[in-house]
Amino acid sequence: MRIGIIGSGVVGQTIGAKLVERGEDVVLGTRSPGSLNDKRGFGQSLDDWLKATGSRARLGTFADAATHGEIVINATSGTVSLEALRLAGEQNLRGKILIDISNPLDFSKGRPPTLTVCNTDSVGEQIQRAFPDAKVVKTLNTTNVNIMVDPGQVAGGNHDLFVSGNDAAAKARVTELLRQWFGWRTVIDLGDITTARGTEMLLPIWLRLWGALGSPMFNFKIAR
Amino acid sequence: MRIGIIGSGVVGQTIGAKLVERGEDVVLGTRSPGSLNDKRGFGQSLDDWLKATGSRARLGTFADAATHGEIVINATSGTVSLEALRLAGEQNLRGKILIDISNPLDFSKGRPPTLTVCNTDSVGEQIQRAFPDAKVVKTLNTTNVNIMVDPGQVAGGNHDLFVSGNDAAAKARVTELLRQWFGWRTVIDLGDITTARGTEMLLPIWLRLWGALGSPMFNFKIAR
Repeated sequence: MRIGIIGSGVVGQTIGAKLVERGEDVVLGTRSPGSLNDKRGFGQSLDDWLKATGSRARLGTFADAATHGEIVINATSGTVSLEALRLAGEQNLRGKILIDISNPLDFSKGRPPTLTVCNTDSVGEQIQRAFPDAKVVKTLNTTNVNIMVDPGQVAGGNHDLFVSGNDAAAKARVTELLRQWFGWRTVIDLGDITTARGTEMLLPIWLRLWGALGSPMFNFKIAR
Repeated sequence: MRIGIIGSGVVGQTIGAKLVERGEDVVLGTRSPGSLNDKRGFGQSLDDWLKATGSRARLGTFADAATHGEIVINATSGTVSLEALRLAGEQNLRGKILIDISNPLDFSKGRPPTLTVCNTDSVGEQIQRAFPDAKVVKTLNTTNVNIMVDPGQVAGGNHDLFVSGNDAAAKARVTELLRQWFGWRTVIDLGDITTARGTEMLLPIWLRLWGALGSPMFNFKIAR
């Protein structure tokens, strides 16, 4: 399947590499495709990333990635997602499933970061409002990137993921892809895209748990 | 042990009844001790509650409860906690452990409710600032009241609770009491009282999970 990834930081790189490994046809979209040797935040340089994928993926602009993808994945920081998706192009997202992994973490005022939007709104909703013809499905934003693509790394995979979105068929499709691509067994459908507030608002405790447990290798399970 | 409970709704009633059952000496503080026959929100009337405890507990004002308690429990709504605790009296809380179960849920603008404070502050912090000589320990606010007092009702008790607070000894004491009183096996110390933001911000997803799962009988477990 043709997948376009918007964002070439550690989340885009990790998801992209896993999808390439799964045989998907990936374009990783970056704001600055020229600087391939620069390290990207917590990720590697795009040159190293391309090598690690056996050069089976391609790099491009955000618009290249969105045009390429049958499904598009937003892997940018929630603080710049709207801008990045505008660069990707509304017409290139039209009618497509847009998997939104972003969190609106603001590190500019020190740590722990706060959220730039929460409580009465969420990045997921902002994106759905700005791109009404895309089928936004919020998911994967509640766990560490290494667990996103390999839930079995923690507690034998016995923990949960959530989906939020207005389109039931899109959520069902994404739920199935999360199983096929990464092995997610339990994905809880929280409801429409307004439920993204709840998953984005998990980030403050998630960050404190990282501190308390001394490792980001944990995930939420809903015991019932 | 002498326990004072501030708030006579379903949380105060349920915690209070359990503590009476455990042999503790409980005063349940209510804003309106006169109207014993009125049903209290999701709880029962205070008359029925007293009968259910075999009349082994007493009712009183918020100040009566705070004066009585070696440990005081705030079981009011987070939207009125500061006011209720002022009525309880700063001098009656001085030097005491104050277990704060409140959540700042605002139902006045429709459902789902929003939080009246979050992201950069929390009720837990507001209370600690307003009552600097109390040892505020935020806990129990992340699960249903029936699970608070009997975690074994869900998944054999294999799920987690959190504590937030500035006083390490107070958190250790509360952690031990949560085990003795209710049977909580895993209580994660998140850090100082600012970590209460994280647990209060769990409420939006908690409420949506209730809707999605069709039952409030679930709890968060940190799989690791």
